[in-house]
Amino acid sequence: MKVLIIGGVATGPKVAARLKRLRPDAEITVVEQGEVISYGACGLPLYLGNLVPQLEELMMTNAGLIRDVKYFQEQKGAKFLTATRALKINPKDKTVLVKNLKTSEEKLLPYDYLVLATGAKPFLPPIPGTELGRVYTLHHPQDAQTIRQLLREKKAKHITILGAGLIGIETADALAGPRVKVTMCEALDSVLPKLLDTDMAKLVERQMRSRGVDLRLGCRIEALEGNAEGEVCRVITDQGVIETEAVIIAAGVRPNVELAQEIGLEIGATGAIKVDKNMRTSDPYIFAGGDCAEQIHVLTGKPVYIPLASTANKQGRVIADNIAGRPTEFSTVLGTSVLQAFDLNIGRTGLGEAEAQQLGYDVITSVVSGLDNTHYYPMHDGISLKLIADRTSGKLLGAQVCGQGEGIKRLDVLATALKFNAKLEDLSNLDLGYAPPFATAIDVVIHAVNTLQNKRDGLVPSFNAPEILAELKAGQEYCFVDVREQDEVQANPLPLDDVLNIPLGELRQRWVDIPPNKKVLAVCELGIRSYEAACILKGLGREQIAYLEGGTSTFRAYYDNLTKDI
Amino acid sequence: MKVLIIGGVATGPKVAARLKRLRPDAEITVVEQGEVISYGACGLPLYLGNLVPQLEELMMTNAGLIRDVKYFQEQKGAKFLTATRALKINPKDKTVLVKNLKTSEEKLLPYDYLVLATGAKPFLPPIPGTELGRVYTLHHPQDAQTIRQLLREKKAKHITILGAGLIGIETADALAGPRVKVTMCEALDSVLPKLLDTDMAKLVERQMRSRGVDLRLGCRIEALEGNAEGEVCRVITDQGVIETEAVIIAAGVRPNVELAQEIGLEIGATGAIKVDKNMRTSDPYIFAGGDCAEQIHVLTGKPVYIPLASTANKQGRVIADNIAGRPTEFSTVLGTSVLQAFDLNIGRTGLGEAEAQQLGYDVITSVVSGLDNTHYYPMHDGISLKLIADRTSGKLLGAQVCGQGEGIKRLDVLATALKFNAKLEDLSNLDLGYAPPFATAIDVVIHAVNTLQNKRDGLVPSFNAPEILAELKAGQEYCFVDVREQDEVQANPLPLDDVLNIPLGELRQRWVDIPPNKKVLAVCELGIRSYEAACILKGLGREQIAYLEGGTSTFRAYYDNLTKDI
Repeated sequence: MKVLIIGGVATGPKVAARLKRLRPDAEITVVEQGEVISYGACGLPLYLGNLVPQLEELMMTNAGLIRDVKYFQEQKGAKFLTATRALKINPKDKTVLVKNLKTSEEKLLPYDYLVLATGAKPFLPPIPGTELGRVYTLHHPQDAQTIRQLLREKKAKHITILGAGLIGIETADALAGPRVKVTMCEALDSVLPKLLDTDMAKLVERQMRSRGVDLRLGCRIEALEGNAEGEVCRVITDQGVIETEAVIIAAGVRPNVELAQEIGLEIGATGAIKVDKNMRTSDPYIFAGGDCAEQIHVLTGKPVYIPLASTANKQGRVIADNIAGRPTEFSTVLGTSVLQAFDLNIGRTGLGEAEAQQLGYDVITSVVSGLDNTHYYPMHDGISLKLIADRTSGKLLGAQVCGQGEGIKRLDVLATALKFNAKLEDLSNLDLGYAPPFATAIDVVIHAVNTLQNKRDGLVPSFNAPEILAELKAGQEYCFVDVREQDEVQANPLPLDDVLNIPLGELRQRWVDIPPNKKVLAVCELGIRSYEAACILKGLGREQIAYLEGGTSTFRAYYDNLTKDI
Repeated sequence: MKVLIIGGVATGPKVAARLKRLRPDAEITVVEQGEVISYGACGLPLYLGNLVPQLEELMMTNAGLIRDVKYFQEQKGAKFLTATRALKINPKDKTVLVKNLKTSEEKLLPYDYLVLATGAKPFLPPIPGTELGRVYTLHHPQDAQTIRQLLREKKAKHITILGAGLIGIETADALAGPRVKVTMCEALDSVLPKLLDTDMAKLVERQMRSRGVDLRLGCRIEALEGNAEGEVCRVITDQGVIETEAVIIAAGVRPNVELAQEIGLEIGATGAIKVDKNMRTSDPYIFAGGDCAEQIHVLTGKPVYIPLASTANKQGRVIADNIAGRPTEFSTVLGTSVLQAFDLNIGRTGLGEAEAQQLGYDVITSVVSGLDNTHYYPMHDGISLKLIADRTSGKLLGAQVCGQGEGIKRLDVLATALKFNAKLEDLSNLDLGYAPPFATAIDVVIHAVNTLQNKRDGLVPSFNAPEILAELKAGQEYCFVDVREQDEVQANPLPLDDVLNIPLGELRQRWVDIPPNKKVLAVCELGIRSYEAACILKGLGREQIAYLEGGTSTFRAYYDNLTKDI
C-alpha cells in the first residue's frame, strides 16, 4: 500500500507514524515544501520571548532527538522529501506531480491513498505596503528567527502588530518590555474577538495596557509606508500614523486548498476542505486533516474553521486508522482555544454569548471571580469565569476564563461537560478533586454553576459590568452600596458617584442609611459578599436591589476608561 | 421557621448561610461543642508544615475576617452557640437538649427542622497505650497547635505516624525533614490504600523513602509504651520496636452518629447516617450531611463513606435548598480524592482496579507516563496516569494519577467524563485546551485513552510493572530490549539481567541481534518508544513481543526492592 502525504508539520507526520505502526507494510512518503518538518509551531512565540532559547527545541522529541528526515526514516519508517512541492494531483491515475525546489527536478509519485495536510498560510490584508522589508508574519520557524535577529542585532525599539488574535497577543507578550515598545492595532472593538466576549476581553486589554502595550481597538489599517531602504517605517491608520521599525501581521490564517480546489474536491463554506466523519474528502482515496480542513462544531452541527495543533494531531490519528482499514470517526470540536499571555491564562470553549444568541438560544450568562486555590495556601491567584447557558433548558453552551490563576484546566472540565451535553444541574455537585493546593472546597467551576443557577432561579437580580454601564449611560441612577471592608475600599475605591460604603457585617444595622426609592447595586471584590448583601436587603423588604456580578475584580477592567464609557 | 443545626465546621455553616439567603425569615441556631467554628480542617497539615504560618488563617475569609460567632451573626444572620454540646434529640417534641460546656447550663432548643452535621472523629485502634502523653490525632486545630508546639519547644526529633492514608501522608510530608525523622507504619501492604492501586502507590512509596521517611508496610501495631512521665516512647510492632518521641494516629475517621442512633435514625451499612437524595434522614424533619452521613457511589449505586470537605459543603447547600422548600438532590459521588505530598500530586476518581474486578467488570487498565506541558516549555513535569475501564463496553471506570506534574485537573476531566458515563471512544478526541504552557498537543489524558484503546484492540501486548515482575518471579525469561538512547541508559540503567540496548533509531537495522526464540519486552522512559519498538518488531514478523507500560518512569519505583520483589 502506497500512501502519499502532502505536508510534513503536524497532521502529516502523525498520519505517517500511526499508520506505519498499524500497517508496517505501508510505503509512506511525505512531501514538504519547507526544509524543516514536524516542528512545534505553537512554540514560536515562546522562542521570540526567549522562553525557548534554541529554535531546535521546537523540533526535538522529549528524549532530545531532532525530528528530521533521518529520524522519521529510522524511527518511524517513513520517507520524507523536504524542499519538495506538490504541484498537481492527478486523481484518475492516482499520482501527484512533485518538484524538488533545490534541483527543480519534477517527478510523479503514485499513491493508493493521498493525505492532504497542506496546512494554512497567514492572511495578508489587502493594503499597500505588505511587501515592504521588516514586514513579517509569524508562521514558520524562519519568521521567528528573522524577528529575533531584528531585535538582537538591529535593536529595534518599536514594533507594530496588526491583529489582536491569539498569535498577535502571544507575540505582543513575547516582545513587549522595557526595551521594545509594542503598538497593537485591531480592526474590531476588542482583543481576541474569536475567543472572548467583549466583557472578558476587557480583562486582557487592561492587563496589556498596564504592561505598556499601546493598544488600538477599532483601528483600520490603511497602508504601510517604507523608508528609502524599502523598510516599513510608518503604519497609516484611521486613528493616525504610527511610526514604527517593524510590522508583524497577525491577521489570522487561511487554509491552503489550492491543490484540492484544482481537482474539484469539495471546499466547505468556511473555505477549508470539506471532509466526512472519517476525514475523507469528496474523493474516497483522498483524506484531509489539520489546518487545511474544516471541522464540525459539536453544539451547532455546523462547519467551522478552527485550526489548532491539537486537532491536527488527533485528526492525523483518525486518518491513519481509516487508511489502515480501521474505521474511526473524528468527533466534532468545541472550539476550545487557550493561551497564556501577559501572565494571564485565557481561554474559551463552546459558544460565545453572541453566537449563542444568533443560534436562537434564550441566553443567560454569569461572570464570577474567585480563587483557584484556598486563600490560605501560599500559591493562589484569581480567575474570572464566564458561563453561557440556555435559560430554558439549563444546557451549558460555553465558558470563558481569564486570570492569573489556574483556569485552563477548569475550562477542560467544562469542555468535557459540553461534550456530554451537560445541564447546569448536572454540574452543581460534580465530584472534583479538592485539597487546599488545588482548589477551594467549592471549586470556582461549581461556584460559577451555582451562581448561574441562582440567576436562572431569579433569586436576586444582578448586572454584569457592561450591563450596569449601559444602565448608567441610559441615565439610570443607582446607589452603589460597596460592602467591602474599609481597607479594601481605600486600596481600590469605586470611581463612581453615589457610593455608600457599608461593610457587609454592618449592613443589617445600617441598611436604613441607604436612600429609599433609589435603585441599589451592591458591590464587593468578587461578587460573593454583594450577593449576600442583596439577599439581606431583599429579605428586609427593599426593592430594586441588584448586585454586581464578578465584583470589582472584573469591573476594574472598565475603570481606565470609565468616564469615557459612561 | 426554626432551624437547628448540630455541628459548626463545614456542612453546618454552609446550611446556615445558604438557608438565610433563601429564607431571611428563618431563625437559625448552630450548636458546636468546640470553641472554633467554620475552619479549614484540610489546611491543618499545611499549618504543621509551616506553609500556613498562623492557625487563624484557616478560620478567615478571603477578605481577612475571622469566621467567628460575631461574623456569622452579623454577616450571615445565624446564631452560633459554641462550647455547647447537643445531648439528646427529642424528635416527638422537636427539641434538642443542649449543654453549655462552660457553665454546665442545660436547655431545650426547639426546631422545625434539625440538621445533623456532627462530623467524624478519629479512629483509635484498639491497642494498649493510646491514652499516653504525646499520642496525638490530627483532627482539630488544637491538635495541630499541640504538635507544632512539641516540635518547636520540645525539639522532638522522631515522630511515628500510624496509618498511611491521606491525612497520614500529608502529615508525614509536613513533618519529615532534616530535623525530624518520621517513621510511618501501615497495616496494609501499600500507602494510600483507599486511594491508589498498589502499582500507583509504589510511586509514592519510592518518593517518601527517597525523602527519608522510614516506611513500614504490612506492619501491625501491637502496643504503645510510655516512659516514667507517661509519655509515649516506644511503638511495639510485629516488625520490631520503634523508639520514638511522639505518635500521631492517622487511622481514618468514624462518623459521629450517636445522637442519630439514640433516636433510631437509620444508620447505613457504612456506619454513617443514611440519607435520601435530598439529604433527609429517616425522620423527615431531620437532615444530615457532611462527615456523619453516607453517600451513594455513581458507578456502583451503593452506599460509600468518603468524608470530604468539598462534599460537606455541597451537601450543606442541598440541605438548605430542601429546608427552604426548593427540592434539590445531592448527586452521587465518584470517590474523587486528591492530595499533594512529597512534591507529588496524587489522586484518584472512580473505581480502583480491584474494586472494579469485584463488581464483575471485565477490567482492562493502562498506565502511561507523560509530561504535563510541552517539553520545550520551561516548566514541565512528568505524571503517571492509570486508567481503568471495562474491556467489553469500553466504559471508563476510574483513574489514578501520581507525579510532580499537573495531574489533578486531568483527574477532574476524567471525573467529569465518569459522571456522564463516558466510553473511551468518546474521550479520544475530547477538545481540551492546548497551548505549550498547559498541555502537550495530544494531552496525556487523551494519550492514556488512546493507549488503553490500543490495548483493547490488541495492537501489541504490554505488561505493566507488577505484571512483568510476576512473570519474572514465575521463572519466565525475557530479553529486555531497552530502546532508549545511550545517555539515558547510562544515567538510569535497567537493573536486570539480559538487557540489550538498541536505541529505537537503530532497531530497524539491529533487530537481528535480538536472540530468537526468546520473549521480548521493549522498554523506554515513558512507554512511547517501546510501544513503537514493539510495533516495529511485530511488523518484522517477530513473535512474543510486548512493551512495558509507563516505561522506566513508573518501573523505577520498583528498583529499590527489585531483587526482593523478584
